[in-house]
Amino acid sequence: MPEQLETDVYRLGECGIDSPLRIPKFIEEGQRIIVDVDYNHITAAFSGSGGAPSFENAGPRRKIFFDPARTRAAIVTCGGLCPGINNVIRGIVLELYHSYGVKSVYGVRYGFEGLIPRFGHGFMTLTPDLVENLHLEGGTLLGSSRGNQNIEEMVDTLEANYISMLFTIGGDGTLRGAEAIYQEIRKRNLDIAVVGVPKTIDNDICWVDRTFGFETSVSTATPVLYTAHAEAKGARNGIGLVKVMGRDSGFIAATTAIASNVVNYVLIPEVPFRLHGAGGLLEHLHRRLAAKKHAVILAAEGAGQEYFENLNEFDASGNKKKGDIGTYLRDEITKYFKEKEFHINLKYIDPSYIIRSVPASPDDAVFCIMLAQNAVHGAMSGRSGFLVGRWNKFFTFIPLKLATQARKKVDPRGYFWTIVKETTGQEDFA
Amino acid sequence: MPEQLETDVYRLGECGIDSPLRIPKFIEEGQRIIVDVDYNHITAAFSGSGGAPSFENAGPRRKIFFDPARTRAAIVTCGGLCPGINNVIRGIVLELYHSYGVKSVYGVRYGFEGLIPRFGHGFMTLTPDLVENLHLEGGTLLGSSRGNQNIEEMVDTLEANYISMLFTIGGDGTLRGAEAIYQEIRKRNLDIAVVGVPKTIDNDICWVDRTFGFETSVSTATPVLYTAHAEAKGARNGIGLVKVMGRDSGFIAATTAIASNVVNYVLIPEVPFRLHGAGGLLEHLHRRLAAKKHAVILAAEGAGQEYFENLNEFDASGNKKKGDIGTYLRDEITKYFKEKEFHINLKYIDPSYIIRSVPASPDDAVFCIMLAQNAVHGAMSGRSGFLVGRWNKFFTFIPLKLATQARKKVDPRGYFWTIVKETTGQEDFA
Amino acid sequence: MPEQLETDVYRLGECGIDSPLRIPKFIEEGQRIIVDVDYNHITAAFSGSGGAPSFENAGPRRKIFFDPARTRAAIVTCGGLCPGINNVIRGIVLELYHSYGVKSVYGVRYGFEGLIPRFGHGFMTLTPDLVENLHLEGGTLLGSSRGNQNIEEMVDTLEANYISMLFTIGGDGTLRGAEAIYQEIRKRNLDIAVVGVPKTIDNDICWVDRTFGFETSVSTATPVLYTAHAEAKGARNGIGLVKVMGRDSGFIAATTAIASNVVNYVLIPEVPFRLHGAGGLLEHLHRRLAAKKHAVILAAEGAGQEYFENLNEFDASGNKKKGDIGTYLRDEITKYFKEKEFHINLKYIDPSYIIRSVPASPDDAVFCIMLAQNAVHGAMSGRSGFLVGRWNKFFTFIPLKLATQARKKVDPRGYFWTIVKETTGQEDFA
Amino acid sequence: MPEQLETDVYRLGECGIDSPLRIPKFIEEGQRIIVDVDYNHITAAFSGSGGAPSFENAGPRRKIFFDPARTRAAIVTCGGLCPGINNVIRGIVLELYHSYGVKSVYGVRYGFEGLIPRFGHGFMTLTPDLVENLHLEGGTLLGSSRGNQNIEEMVDTLEANYISMLFTIGGDGTLRGAEAIYQEIRKRNLDIAVVGVPKTIDNDICWVDRTFGFETSVSTATPVLYTAHAEAKGARNGIGLVKVMGRDSGFIAATTAIASNVVNYVLIPEVPFRLHGAGGLLEHLHRRLAAKKHAVILAAEGAGQEYFENLNEFDASGNKKKGDIGTYLRDEITKYFKEKEFHINLKYIDPSYIIRSVPASPDDAVFCIMLAQNAVHGAMSGRSGFLVGRWNKFFTFIPLKLATQARKKVDPRGYFWTIVKETTGQEDFA
Repeated sequence: MPEQLETDVYRLGECGIDSPLRIPKFIEEGQRIIVDVDYNHITAAFSGSGGAPSFENAGPRRKIFFDPARTRAAIVTCGGLCPGINNVIRGIVLELYHSYGVKSVYGVRYGFEGLIPRFGHGFMTLTPDLVENLHLEGGTLLGSSRGNQNIEEMVDTLEANYISMLFTIGGDGTLRGAEAIYQEIRKRNLDIAVVGVPKTIDNDICWVDRTFGFETSVSTATPVLYTAHAEAKGARNGIGLVKVMGRDSGFIAATTAIASNVVNYVLIPEVPFRLHGAGGLLEHLHRRLAAKKHAVILAAEGAGQEYFENLNEFDASGNKKKGDIGTYLRDEITKYFKEKEFHINLKYIDPSYIIRSVPASPDDAVFCIMLAQNAVHGAMSGRSGFLVGRWNKFFTFIPLKLATQARKKVDPRGYFWTIVKETTGQEDFA
Repeated sequence: MPEQLETDVYRLGECGIDSPLRIPKFIEEGQRIIVDVDYNHITAAFSGSGGAPSFENAGPRRKIFFDPARTRAAIVTCGGLCPGINNVIRGIVLELYHSYGVKSVYGVRYGFEGLIPRFGHGFMTLTPDLVENLHLEGGTLLGSSRGNQNIEEMVDTLEANYISMLFTIGGDGTLRGAEAIYQEIRKRNLDIAVVGVPKTIDNDICWVDRTFGFETSVSTATPVLYTAHAEAKGARNGIGLVKVMGRDSGFIAATTAIASNVVNYVLIPEVPFRLHGAGGLLEHLHRRLAAKKHAVILAAEGAGQEYFENLNEFDASGNKKKGDIGTYLRDEITKYFKEKEFHINLKYIDPSYIIRSVPASPDDAVFCIMLAQNAVHGAMSGRSGFLVGRWNKFFTFIPLKLATQARKKVDPRGYFWTIVKETTGQEDFA
Repeated sequence: MPEQLETDVYRLGECGIDSPLRIPKFIEEGQRIIVDVDYNHITAAFSGSGGAPSFENAGPRRKIFFDPARTRAAIVTCGGLCPGINNVIRGIVLELYHSYGVKSVYGVRYGFEGLIPRFGHGFMTLTPDLVENLHLEGGTLLGSSRGNQNIEEMVDTLEANYISMLFTIGGDGTLRGAEAIYQEIRKRNLDIAVVGVPKTIDNDICWVDRTFGFETSVSTATPVLYTAHAEAKGARNGIGLVKVMGRDSGFIAATTAIASNVVNYVLIPEVPFRLHGAGGLLEHLHRRLAAKKHAVILAAEGAGQEYFENLNEFDASGNKKKGDIGTYLRDEITKYFKEKEFHINLKYIDPSYIIRSVPASPDDAVFCIMLAQNAVHGAMSGRSGFLVGRWNKFFTFIPLKLATQARKKVDPRGYFWTIVKETTGQEDFA
Repeated sequence: MPEQLETDVYRLGECGIDSPLRIPKFIEEGQRIIVDVDYNHITAAFSGSGGAPSFENAGPRRKIFFDPARTRAAIVTCGGLCPGINNVIRGIVLELYHSYGVKSVYGVRYGFEGLIPRFGHGFMTLTPDLVENLHLEGGTLLGSSRGNQNIEEMVDTLEANYISMLFTIGGDGTLRGAEAIYQEIRKRNLDIAVVGVPKTIDNDICWVDRTFGFETSVSTATPVLYTAHAEAKGARNGIGLVKVMGRDSGFIAATTAIASNVVNYVLIPEVPFRLHGAGGLLEHLHRRLAAKKHAVILAAEGAGQEYFENLNEFDASGNKKKGDIGTYLRDEITKYFKEKEFHINLKYIDPSYIIRSVPASPDDAVFCIMLAQNAVHGAMSGRSGFLVGRWNKFFTFIPLKLATQARKKVDPRGYFWTIVKETTGQEDFA
């Protein structure tokens, strides 16, 4: 917990319009929740000056900034697929239409590309009818793309189309893009709200307890591990090697290992491991196969990047390209046992595209609707440059800048990783 | 939030034994988390005297009370089925065996009956081998029963069998039974820990954010609502009427309504509704059918109990028997439209037994393991008369007494119910 | 196998139009498959005169009767829901549109009611766009109803709307209705083809190996039996009692019992059973509970109708109403054990509406498309008064009259029922 | 249909023992079913001399060859995983134990390796308790391996262990191995029955309508195609490329294309296709992307082998290694569009290991039990060198030699492939 957190969300201006929502309770301005729930920390903070950091509660406000009748909203989805994108799109459209009476909602096609006229994608008109059953489909209705586009051009497009609010559904890079758009809008002094809905299947956004799609991913990955287990046990010295998402944070791999109960080795970006030599993973695997004749290995895609230090490539989103730990492990394991003249049967499974494009689970479906509604509440109240998160059971508005400063990670010394190690029985191979 | 919460957990005595756990970090005694995260409330609390209420963090302690070599643990499961019971049993056995080295673990058969010798059920010896794949099956390995048994006799059985710790997996009534056992043990001054793992599919335990099985239930109930929707649309003036669990709290019904997006009317115990007369549900349903030709109604089993005021029956657990709102609605709806000479096609679906006996979802599987491990940590540290909960993202130990004083409910004026009403478009029929 | 089978399908007239289908192979007129594949029967038949009975192969014909440009098709769905109805509707629409170029396809609303003007339902225009994703939804897009309507009025409607072909998707009663419509059309000497697509979740149509939805039903019912098993084992002397579809034929119950491996007693319409007295089911159940403490019973809805002989009610389809064997068994079992003062825990599960309204499984999806295409081929070739079946791996056209003369049943002395008895270990309680 | 089919199954000797089965009906010796059901073919055959080819009905015989009390059975599973292997193992064990009273049943570990002493695998004793819940797990309890072993050594092992019957569950290569074992046994004049249960996920065994696991594979592959579709639509010019099983026959790919309704191009071994040049697949794909912006391609692993003619490698089973059409297509497509400077987003998915190691579907579960029981019936009756198949709705015994002479294939000019082309709208790229 840093000493100082910039938790205040920017406001476009005075809220002079009565909310059209007919609900029993609004969120009062000034309602906030405490960030750190450790009792001793709080006691210390309040015994000093200034109190403890807190986040603004999300939720509907009694007074809003935008006049629904004149509001034009746009939604853009960027980056890789994640279960629930369509639920969020649907939720935003329905909340704007039915609760606030905003009838002009547009879908930007293929990510930020759709805000650059020369791609010629045009906008898609979004209506309740069109999105009615959208939550039953994986993927994104709008299409997506990776990478940023020219910020000025994108803001030009927003201006030219009289867009009042832009909902950006995307990950770390996208949210940084949204932040840049927001800054450009402030520079031009425009009344356009920029809202982020964090979409990271890896669940690695800071100051956000949970991102949508993560629960679905673990639910979808778990039976894949059962098949890896069946493959491993189905052959002499069978090895089931599975790679799942997790560029910088190993939450999917670690959680799936606990959920499935069949994984013997989990490899995540946060915990470097030694592959070769005495005490290394290969030696341990060798011993295990000799004793048990099968093993299951689950690797997050960002694990073991220490083995790819010379790789200096970047993807369209500007993320440093990861070395492919899945095929690397497959090849190194094969080589090791060939040298040892020890017969193995390795089956390599990469289910990433299957996992990330399924429809959202019921649990994520509920979460997505709530995220979408709160994104709309925040935008209608004239907030900008913020994202909708969840923290300590409450939905929150937090500055985009705060959330994109770092990534949430598995703590190698923490309780969660301890459980993973207990469940798998593995060591750290440090 | 009441002014005063009794949050301190009883301790059997001094912890003089080093924990056998080889983990990087233990929970320090005195680590607590704050109960209420509202920033203004906390500010007020700390500006006054005494600070704000807090719960003890669960987790492993550096020093433990029980000597693993001499510890004999027993597990009992009571009340109705709930997804995840077997996961919790499995988790307790594995944690005791592998982490603490407790090799004597017994299963009590058929709930509290198993602690009464005259039933002749005997104990079941629980080993890691026996429970290895238990998480793949719904139900409970141990069998269950409803209702309490004689407290003295049960404690006699624990004493006679040199049981050191009793894990009770059950709902409200069971936890009150556990509290009574705990009190009798204190009276006799015995070194037996009594631990509760709250099992309520309704998610209605106070001061506990989430109970296991709830997420699985919503996931399992959601596709049932799709079938009700198909039935409703498949016939002229079709009505799909579904009853789900929810004796006193409507969380399953309300959450499933949001998740499925096909429900037109949700009825829960917390929101009384008028069925007959102008502005009543039947009249509204009539209008809807005339316009749309189909409707889906989802009722929690405890909804509309105002229609059964004269019913004075009690079940084996001592719970007041609920009137059967499902068949009541079926009959009243049928009668109403018969009188109106309006042809309807009502399909009544009661999936309760199907939902509650499925295996736990991956998400609940992870949760159950963590609950089980923390239950063991608490017991080994000599705590007694407590349950393992989760609050503000942390696992907690809280007194059984505190958790059983009231039930958690859907707030009819709160944010969650507002979303339900938006999703369904329904009124309150008050 | 009867001596004489009327297997010839009526033809409206000469086929003078070239089929627009661009395919490598058409079915030649005269292509037929043998009905009985028993080698000895065939030898005997051919050594006599006249040969053995055979069915006409379905499939596309080189010459067709109807001019696609002037053809107007109508589809009607009748009776209870069954997985796959929407797939068949979709398949007919797409085949008519894309393969034959028939652009006028109408949906009749709510079964035969939709052909009676005074109900005011009107027709629904069916286009490829509208049905594109229809196979992902359970139920029927068109709505359904039970029971017949006035034949003359229905044919009047067909005439008045210039309908060239009517596809009726329905069960035994519906197909008899289709036969009557066909006869009336012949009487009036109209060029309207009447086609039946047999929809019986019970798989009980004679001379048809398989009906759509059956495989999906067994797949959906099987996990329900697992929950019944979990409930049975979860309580002392637990009984899981499940009722599934099967009015006159027990195929679903019998197949699900084999598939699930957890059923101890299967009750089907074809095998009467004695409940009470020595050697009766209750006595056997009593012995089993005393020994094993749990039991699972699976009853087809038409089982044990000998216990309801005085019931003389008929449903809207004109089928004699069945006594409710599920609640009857529940009550009789409860009474029996109460008298014996033997404590039981009975859980009664009726998943019928859940099973019959799920989307079709992939296997049924493929089957439905083939049925639909062949229904269209038959109609376009000017055949009428027939249904599309499958026999010995081939799709067939057989007269409606032939298929509705009797029902296919489980043979109590046959191989299939023997397997059921082996799997469950049950006796016959005759 | 060849003129002459060798359909007679070898018999070890006279059946002098009464079957212990208590069932109402046995299969009479001489009961056979006709192979070809085409009425015209049959008429021609019977008007000539000698009649038409027929297969022996499987099923229990009144008189058996082996004395159950002295019978020792062994089961071996070879080759890749396939849903249902465990069901077949379970079914054989239960039928031998409970129906025939054979109590000595052994599992051979890791395929034919387990019959070669120097591997040191030993036998596994199989009991009803051990296999009770086996059908809930994918994979094979016994482990498997590819490739043949020395025939004499394997027969030595059978002799040395007094094995009376060997059940071999495997594909084409395995069945040829079983045939060789059977021939060696005949040479030595031993009373050992050799039975094949055809296990080919590709459903490509001749004279066998259906092999177990195929239906499950299509059911499991279908939702994978939905994710490929979501990926394709989720990006500009998105291409979802999926490879599924199908070395020599494209049944899985073709059936999944029909079932899923989202595939635009299916590539199977039976239909060569031109990739490059005018009228080739790439050109067509280019046009489609320009028009629709997304495409889904489904390739069987054996498709397009004309592009790998120089590849002369063989796998452990002695099958010629296939070129990897999945990665080849991925690379060629990428290269083509790079040259055209046309931006695409290709996602390549290979779900093979996931599909083949899931538990059997309910439909396959039923089928596997019936296969297993008939395998036992055949062996107990002293038949040898045969496999259990299904033909025209009946289970059959056919010579191993007959079934392994060729492979069943999709007919490029037949009805089935026509439907695939209609569903996908693709051309042949010949």
